[in-house]
Amino acid sequence: MGKTRLEAFSDGVIAIIITIMVLELKVPHGATLEALVPLGPVLLSYVLSFAYVGIYWNNHHHLLHAVQSVSGGVLWANLHLLFWLSLIPFVTGWMGENHFATLPVAAYGVILFMSSVAYMILVRFLTRHQRENAALARAIGSDRKGHASMALYAVGVALAFVHPWLGFAVYFGVALLWFIPDRRIEQTVHTA
Amino acid sequence: MGKTRLEAFSDGVIAIIITIMVLELKVPHGATLEALVPLGPVLLSYVLSFAYVGIYWNNHHHLLHAVQSVSGGVLWANLHLLFWLSLIPFVTGWMGENHFATLPVAAYGVILFMSSVAYMILVRFLTRHQRENAALARAIGSDRKGHASMALYAVGVALAFVHPWLGFAVYFGVALLWFIPDRRIEQTVHTA
Amino acid sequence: MGKTRLEAFSDGVIAIIITIMVLELKVPHGATLEALVPLGPVLLSYVLSFAYVGIYWNNHHHLLHAVQSVSGGVLWANLHLLFWLSLIPFVTGWMGENHFATLPVAAYGVILFMSSVAYMILVRFLTRHQRENAALARAIGSDRKGHASMALYAVGVALAFVHPWLGFAVYFGVALLWFIPDRRIEQTVHTA
Amino acid sequence: MGKTRLEAFSDGVIAIIITIMVLELKVPHGATLEALVPLGPVLLSYVLSFAYVGIYWNNHHHLLHAVQSVSGGVLWANLHLLFWLSLIPFVTGWMGENHFATLPVAAYGVILFMSSVAYMILVRFLTRHQRENAALARAIGSDRKGHASMALYAVGVALAFVHPWLGFAVYFGVALLWFIPDRRIEQTVHTA
Repeated sequence: MGKTRLEAFSDGVIAIIITIMVLELKVPHGATLEALVPLGPVLLSYVLSFAYVGIYWNNHHHLLHAVQSVSGGVLWANLHLLFWLSLIPFVTGWMGENHFATLPVAAYGVILFMSSVAYMILVRFLTRHQRENAALARAIGSDRKGHASMALYAVGVALAFVHPWLGFAVYFGVALLWFIPDRRIEQTVHTA
Repeated sequence: MGKTRLEAFSDGVIAIIITIMVLELKVPHGATLEALVPLGPVLLSYVLSFAYVGIYWNNHHHLLHAVQSVSGGVLWANLHLLFWLSLIPFVTGWMGENHFATLPVAAYGVILFMSSVAYMILVRFLTRHQRENAALARAIGSDRKGHASMALYAVGVALAFVHPWLGFAVYFGVALLWFIPDRRIEQTVHTA
Repeated sequence: MGKTRLEAFSDGVIAIIITIMVLELKVPHGATLEALVPLGPVLLSYVLSFAYVGIYWNNHHHLLHAVQSVSGGVLWANLHLLFWLSLIPFVTGWMGENHFATLPVAAYGVILFMSSVAYMILVRFLTRHQRENAALARAIGSDRKGHASMALYAVGVALAFVHPWLGFAVYFGVALLWFIPDRRIEQTVHTA
Repeated sequence: MGKTRLEAFSDGVIAIIITIMVLELKVPHGATLEALVPLGPVLLSYVLSFAYVGIYWNNHHHLLHAVQSVSGGVLWANLHLLFWLSLIPFVTGWMGENHFATLPVAAYGVILFMSSVAYMILVRFLTRHQRENAALARAIGSDRKGHASMALYAVGVALAFVHPWLGFAVYFGVALLWFIPDRRIEQTVHTA
């Protein structure tokens, strides 16, 4: 089965997720700087989530670029990933509106953690699907970066209960780590 | 006429439907676990609807994959299906916010029933369109699974009036039934 | 210049327009039939607008299918059409929430009228663009159907001031008229 | 790496941005002309932003049309541009609802300025990427139009503090300037 429509559908869902988050930036009624101040945390959480959804789109782009064909299981693994990503606008709004309180920051990390688990499941389905995707499997290798991120999200959730900004700092750090798209795939596949 | 734009438009509409449902998960004002509790039923109905819209996208994907060309009637049958699917966010929100009360659960089943009718009409238009789609007709066969689902949705609506959770249980069961994409099409067409 | 991205962008915008209209169907707080009753007019106006946006997508699909290449002017004429279509959700909501009062029904007709003007301008740009699109020009011919619709929308707006339902009846009638996609293009181009 | 998915994702995000702005046109509760009056400024700011987002889509379309391949850096530069564009609905709503007060008009100009900076960075990444894109580099040349716009946005922001309508007039003027798509690219590349 072709991968074109899977890419198109995923692009659509991810494009909507990344854009509807801005609806949480409610237009303030006053026209003063003071009216903008309460939006500060909302904007900050928006920036982080925009980066994360962008990272997922980027890696998803690279991942499927290296894939030849998809199975029925891949369709479901992909929907599962989109489900967790679709909850990012909710936790983004919750974290922003509550000015980075403990529980929302922890919840944000839980969604990041579940998204990374779902991404890993998708990778697993793709590499197991058929021999054609062997280049991908070799490229991904043991996927230390993915496992490290998952562990760091868990650490971030735990640290959020010590102090929310510690959790936020961890999420921010992992985002920086992923800012560089998955060059492993790009290189192995393109030199193959 | 080509099917590419039909697929692209359907992907767009279905991607938006599956994503705007999350807007019903209104960000709570408190940062406590108690503030999240009322969202439980909303989240549960969201999960069910995400699965259903995902199932429709999946089957739509398989269905059109097996199709060579589309007629004007197919365009309208497809829009008709998208119309009923577009009401899923509404009944999802109604069911979730009213904590699975009788009428909303029944209404949810009615929309599922109408969507399955619309899907069946689309299949009918596609198989009758031209001989090129004969492989599809053979693959679908008598479509027992589709007819069974329609009957079960009707049963679910009736049972919702006995107890809403009975209706919900039926919808949940049918979703599980459809979780596996329509392998009949995949096999017949791909071995053809 | 290729037409693929123009189609993709238009599909995206039209898909969003047709889907966000459902957000006007606000989830009622009660779980009773009485709570649904005020939504009746909103649903009715939603159905009409869904049909209209579907008709525009359908005709747009046929129109661009017959086109070989697009100019810069076509991009703007297309955006101009999308602008008027993007106001359909607004007038749909206004008409529905005010239970088909005079002014909203007239405003709805004005937007339909402007959309049909914008569509005609787009057709003009496409047929004048280059000789390659000559097949399209011949197919469209004098476009009596388009001109008749424009005149009927104007009549509908005027009649809305006599009685809103007269205006609505005219819009409904024109929608039926357009339900059949533009077969002129389909035939001429496909037999060419 | 191919540019198809980059175009598809950008089209999706830009299509959503241009369409969700209409959600700021809140449906008035009354059915009178008076009920529409307060929407005047909101509609005016919507028209300007629709034109701007349309201009960006148009130029983005032309820009990537001239490109052969994209690097990882281009993906990020593109996301950076989409980020600033995604804030346009927010400042549009703020400017409209506050009837073109000083600060919202200035903020609107800041977002336009940042968007033009982001566009310039994207152009830089594309032209530096590889020799294949040399035709684009030659076509863009010194990009006087882009630099002039950036300067004019800054002037508009400053003038907004003198009188908001002066700022608005500048933004309006720059939009007119860009109404014509980037013919430089179209010509150079197509004659090459």
